[in-house]
Amino acid sequence: MPVKRGRMFFMNPGPTNIPDRVLRAMDRPALDFAQAEFKAIALECFAGLKRVFRTEQIMVVYAASGHGAWESALVNVCSPGDTVLVPETGHFSLSWSEMVRHYGVEIETVPGDWRKGVDPAAVEERLKADKDHKIRAVLQVHNETSTGVAHPVAAVRKAIDAAKHPALYLVDTISSLGSFDFRMDDWGVDVAVGGSQKGLMLPPGMCFTGISRKALAASQSATLPREYWNWRRMLDGERQVRFAGTAPVHHIFGLQESLKMIEEEGLDAIFARHARLGEATRRCVAAWSKGGGPELFCTNPELVSNSVTAIQVPDGHDANKLRDVCLERFNVSLGGGLNRLNGKVFRIGHMGDLNEPMLMGALSAVEMGFGVAGIPHGAGGVNAAMEYLKAA
Amino acid sequence: MPVKRGRMFFMNPGPTNIPDRVLRAMDRPALDFAQAEFKAIALECFAGLKRVFRTEQIMVVYAASGHGAWESALVNVCSPGDTVLVPETGHFSLSWSEMVRHYGVEIETVPGDWRKGVDPAAVEERLKADKDHKIRAVLQVHNETSTGVAHPVAAVRKAIDAAKHPALYLVDTISSLGSFDFRMDDWGVDVAVGGSQKGLMLPPGMCFTGISRKALAASQSATLPREYWNWRRMLDGERQVRFAGTAPVHHIFGLQESLKMIEEEGLDAIFARHARLGEATRRCVAAWSKGGGPELFCTNPELVSNSVTAIQVPDGHDANKLRDVCLERFNVSLGGGLNRLNGKVFRIGHMGDLNEPMLMGALSAVEMGFGVAGIPHGAGGVNAAMEYLKAA
Amino acid sequence: MPVKRGRMFFMNPGPTNIPDRVLRAMDRPALDFAQAEFKAIALECFAGLKRVFRTEQIMVVYAASGHGAWESALVNVCSPGDTVLVPETGHFSLSWSEMVRHYGVEIETVPGDWRKGVDPAAVEERLKADKDHKIRAVLQVHNETSTGVAHPVAAVRKAIDAAKHPALYLVDTISSLGSFDFRMDDWGVDVAVGGSQKGLMLPPGMCFTGISRKALAASQSATLPREYWNWRRMLDGERQVRFAGTAPVHHIFGLQESLKMIEEEGLDAIFARHARLGEATRRCVAAWSKGGGPELFCTNPELVSNSVTAIQVPDGHDANKLRDVCLERFNVSLGGGLNRLNGKVFRIGHMGDLNEPMLMGALSAVEMGFGVAGIPHGAGGVNAAMEYLKAA
Amino acid sequence: MPVKRGRMFFMNPGPTNIPDRVLRAMDRPALDFAQAEFKAIALECFAGLKRVFRTEQIMVVYAASGHGAWESALVNVCSPGDTVLVPETGHFSLSWSEMVRHYGVEIETVPGDWRKGVDPAAVEERLKADKDHKIRAVLQVHNETSTGVAHPVAAVRKAIDAAKHPALYLVDTISSLGSFDFRMDDWGVDVAVGGSQKGLMLPPGMCFTGISRKALAASQSATLPREYWNWRRMLDGERQVRFAGTAPVHHIFGLQESLKMIEEEGLDAIFARHARLGEATRRCVAAWSKGGGPELFCTNPELVSNSVTAIQVPDGHDANKLRDVCLERFNVSLGGGLNRLNGKVFRIGHMGDLNEPMLMGALSAVEMGFGVAGIPHGAGGVNAAMEYLKAA
Repeated sequence: MPVKRGRMFFMNPGPTNIPDRVLRAMDRPALDFAQAEFKAIALECFAGLKRVFRTEQIMVVYAASGHGAWESALVNVCSPGDTVLVPETGHFSLSWSEMVRHYGVEIETVPGDWRKGVDPAAVEERLKADKDHKIRAVLQVHNETSTGVAHPVAAVRKAIDAAKHPALYLVDTISSLGSFDFRMDDWGVDVAVGGSQKGLMLPPGMCFTGISRKALAASQSATLPREYWNWRRMLDGERQVRFAGTAPVHHIFGLQESLKMIEEEGLDAIFARHARLGEATRRCVAAWSKGGGPELFCTNPELVSNSVTAIQVPDGHDANKLRDVCLERFNVSLGGGLNRLNGKVFRIGHMGDLNEPMLMGALSAVEMGFGVAGIPHGAGGVNAAMEYLKAA
Repeated sequence: MPVKRGRMFFMNPGPTNIPDRVLRAMDRPALDFAQAEFKAIALECFAGLKRVFRTEQIMVVYAASGHGAWESALVNVCSPGDTVLVPETGHFSLSWSEMVRHYGVEIETVPGDWRKGVDPAAVEERLKADKDHKIRAVLQVHNETSTGVAHPVAAVRKAIDAAKHPALYLVDTISSLGSFDFRMDDWGVDVAVGGSQKGLMLPPGMCFTGISRKALAASQSATLPREYWNWRRMLDGERQVRFAGTAPVHHIFGLQESLKMIEEEGLDAIFARHARLGEATRRCVAAWSKGGGPELFCTNPELVSNSVTAIQVPDGHDANKLRDVCLERFNVSLGGGLNRLNGKVFRIGHMGDLNEPMLMGALSAVEMGFGVAGIPHGAGGVNAAMEYLKAA
Repeated sequence: MPVKRGRMFFMNPGPTNIPDRVLRAMDRPALDFAQAEFKAIALECFAGLKRVFRTEQIMVVYAASGHGAWESALVNVCSPGDTVLVPETGHFSLSWSEMVRHYGVEIETVPGDWRKGVDPAAVEERLKADKDHKIRAVLQVHNETSTGVAHPVAAVRKAIDAAKHPALYLVDTISSLGSFDFRMDDWGVDVAVGGSQKGLMLPPGMCFTGISRKALAASQSATLPREYWNWRRMLDGERQVRFAGTAPVHHIFGLQESLKMIEEEGLDAIFARHARLGEATRRCVAAWSKGGGPELFCTNPELVSNSVTAIQVPDGHDANKLRDVCLERFNVSLGGGLNRLNGKVFRIGHMGDLNEPMLMGALSAVEMGFGVAGIPHGAGGVNAAMEYLKAA
Repeated sequence: MPVKRGRMFFMNPGPTNIPDRVLRAMDRPALDFAQAEFKAIALECFAGLKRVFRTEQIMVVYAASGHGAWESALVNVCSPGDTVLVPETGHFSLSWSEMVRHYGVEIETVPGDWRKGVDPAAVEERLKADKDHKIRAVLQVHNETSTGVAHPVAAVRKAIDAAKHPALYLVDTISSLGSFDFRMDDWGVDVAVGGSQKGLMLPPGMCFTGISRKALAASQSATLPREYWNWRRMLDGERQVRFAGTAPVHHIFGLQESLKMIEEEGLDAIFARHARLGEATRRCVAAWSKGGGPELFCTNPELVSNSVTAIQVPDGHDANKLRDVCLERFNVSLGGGLNRLNGKVFRIGHMGDLNEPMLMGALSAVEMGFGVAGIPHGAGGVNAAMEYLKAA
């Protein structure tokens, strides 16, 4: 294998680019997590996280992957025999459902086209039909990382309210948090599930759960067994900053720095930057798609994701061949198609610590990669992105 | 607060000193965890971990604190209504028991004096009395980090065998692994629970579970719900290296380096170094204890721990005052007394990446700290440690 | 000033991109430079440097910028009243001459067009005319970093030989070394001057002087005063690795790693990569230049530099405005025009640890920047680069 | 060679311990040194350096070892045939003299006992005898790193003034700056020579020259040739922050951080800390010296250095054997005897980022090392240091 040189363009939709500042902040000796110095750092992080989640309610932090935050959301509010309603959005809604199943909770799926968005009316209808309120919670992915579709949250909340249904609203904001607008309190989200390795620009291994007071109250009577994920353990007494076992001190050091970076730039500016880079990517794909070339997987222009773009290659072509070319020849790492999209789709993560030339370098590699991999495509994708960015 | 200068002497029994090499190895961009380059690193780590656990059976790795590995051990082999037998060793045996309780599993405690070791005969007796084999597992802490007592493992295994009892043997090796002898396969341990932040010299946030084939078979019929911790998810099909969700790539980068360091020095040399530094610490404490001064908490000289020493201050004195003095004035961080030992005991971690002058600097600070804090103590502790180390 | 995000594209022609591996290798405590451990590292570095210089003669290393290596070359072989012959190549030939002047050495310039290359015939003619051999040395810049012209070296050596002149041949290889072909011994270079911050991918602050045996002999009789730069000090007795005062241990740590990277990739592969990226840049510029747009400063296609491209903007336009736009809006740092080229020229460094998407990101930013800065330019530069790289 | 573990105790008197904060600050990509962002950092550093030098006059910064700052001081103020007066203090006064000699400048030495301090009266007497004012400058080392003697500066200034002699006063503050009191302006120092790798806690490779207006004026007429070291180049026009060639940007990044640390702690607190650690070291040595053991090299108790202690071993014993033992067995690096003190003396650097347990760890290793190396010594050195530090 020839030696690869220069910086890898890490365009995966998570883990994603980690700023040097964050890596350096984590490159330090440990602290005693029971000590005042660490507690002050952790408190600062919890307060900053709440600002990013746009919540004034409750936050818990785990040493775990994002799957841990999912499990935390589930086992704290559900009891065996409960039903949850899951709008189908793609691979990650399926994975979350799968987890539910193993806990002896019933699943009702709201079937959905992976290329389109969740239909709030269908959710409302289903909830209205649930006269006995067997449905304990609605579980929804905000940004389907596998498809690049950003599903409606405020509208689904309205649908739940319109149905006058007491279901809790659990939302996975893992790949939207810190990349585009998410408002836990304004949008009536009861449990918001986040991870370190996307818009928060950290290594994987830490996850977050924003908890509404209503969800916390519900957890008192929920009977699924839990200990590592147990909110009560984390919030016991007056102590606000608790962890399950030894605190992940290095991830917290990194979080302190990434939150500083977020405050310096400001969420509005961050969202505008992601919108700009997301739109540039889509303009590029639009050019490629001409004449039957690779096209946007998301077919609803109002729900395109500003943090990840999934691109479907023409039938008979292999998206993974393109990914191999980009990696081996250009040192550009792209996301693959998950689940039934494997080989059909490749994904460009454009979230976190990214700027215009980083994106353009990646799009150039993909455009060259189509040629090398023999995938037919319309010309001028990179030009279209530049035209847009120049004026944006 | 005056500015502290120089390097903090981090003498906590976990997290512990992290070598620069490990920190630097983690200070790098992410990799796609589905990519060949990462998989090769992870495979290397799994193989190295097995050598450290001295097992040829099964290994799983989680993004989680050590509590996660505990939970993994429990939920994969137990079913609601099962009983587990827990020899009382100190704070961590109590914590593990507490976790068990929340899962609807019954606990039988083998009462024990925290200053002495587990009595294998008592375990054997209790198992013999369990004619119906209601006891699913024996849960034991190898090295009680809260007391500095290294409890017998091989002897307890013999006790289980002597009782002809089918109970699985679950052992917490968190603060012994990589510091002194632990042999999963030779000693007949069914589930061995380890963490990143002690002898493996990594930041907290990753844990390990060594699984015997017998335990894996038992997990097939165990019915406690589990998904994040589910061994089946980690071992599905032919793929050997699976994680729950996104792999903790940076911890794996660090683990690769710490395993290299362990191989370079060799486990035997590592254990000899820990034995030497542990004995030096105890010689020092023996001098301090003269005339009623601070004394070793562990009263069984055959079970003293080579990775952590707990020291009990005289009645009427506050161990935490000493810790404050050492931290504020000398930038030396010591472990506190846990649970009912709070204020009575302080702890010196001497595990991981430690050498003679690091230990001597810390012991000097403690000896000076006694004077500052007004804790009566025998003279010559530091001298006694030097006398020993000079000849060792 | 708005916060800039993402990685800066550092396209200056020195200092240049420093690989993470090199930065991490320098991020470590000091060593005693008189100790065996350090000496072994330094010896390894000196041997590796010789391979990069393609010499088997003598190497000295200074803590200093590249100007230090220039001064070292000068003061060790010249005496007051000597004459040196300097083919004019651009800003750096002028700067080197300026240094000469301050040392009481006469300068004869071979006038040259900055956009063309040194004419070996003119050098030969001038040397032939120097019947009394007053000319002590020919001082030449191999790659003029200010113009992007790679001047002939082997041919000038032949010219010196053809003139049967004893002049020493002193060559500045600062911005060619490790980027494209330079052969100290084969090409008969007597003193080769290199720096850390270009193709060797290190921070600035260390420089190198390759010394032929002939030059070393000449230094015995040269009478310019010198101590810091004094070769005799560095080479005294049998000790091969000496420094003026305290050795720059961290730069040496970095050099050890950069030499490893160079050996891993291989000089031939490195040169091929630079040739590919240089040609892509020139294809891009060729497209921009259509219709009177920005054009290559170098007008001799056989002497284009593979490590830096200087681009002249149309009359009436300000190259620095473009640089400001690229920096402020796209976080891309470009080199400016030096000396009389200030404002007329901007420079793209494409040396060291660079790959295709890094270059394409930068070229995209420049192409967009032309639009923002209102600099007329031909279309399709980025496309032309992609077309070339796809097939290269 | 057995693998060494734990952190090396780096007790050399330069380079010295580098704080993690400084190493991390240097672990970042380069900046264009002509860019506003870098210039602002450099300006901040120059202002901070002046505060550390306690001067409001002129500062220049070089990429070079401390020898470079020496050479800068010399060549900017002297002309061929000048005489300089050099009080003999030890190895470093000899080395500086040696440099002078190579520049064709005459040396008058004020002979001195290396174990005692410079005698201001002898300096005064010699200057008075120089009726023709042939002596251009007095060159003095403030803290002789090779002997651990801190020579008087204010008193020598008074001696120069008392002699009514116009000689410039050039002082090497390399190993005192930032460790104990040095006042360039108050003490009438004309050129103050500093380095990065001692009290400023940086890697070697950068040096500083504080210049009085009087010295700057003198440099106008001085005729030694110079270009790299030429103050005029550094101070040309209104630009305050110039470097010879490419600026050492990474060292400047580190300096910015080390100056922050110095401001946080405050020079007074830093000097008090060094005084405390120096005195503890001397109390330790005093105990060792009983019965003919190793003793302080400095015999003048008023001139003991707070940054480095030189210790002379008894006749017939080899100081380097002790150093080898400390390094090989305890991972403690000590300074050796320089020049005629080689083998007779070892040195403990206690400057820069040091605290009590770091010192005690090192002193413990030395005390144990005496035993291992068979060097007779009084008992109780470490105890004496602890007794002092406990109360200090």
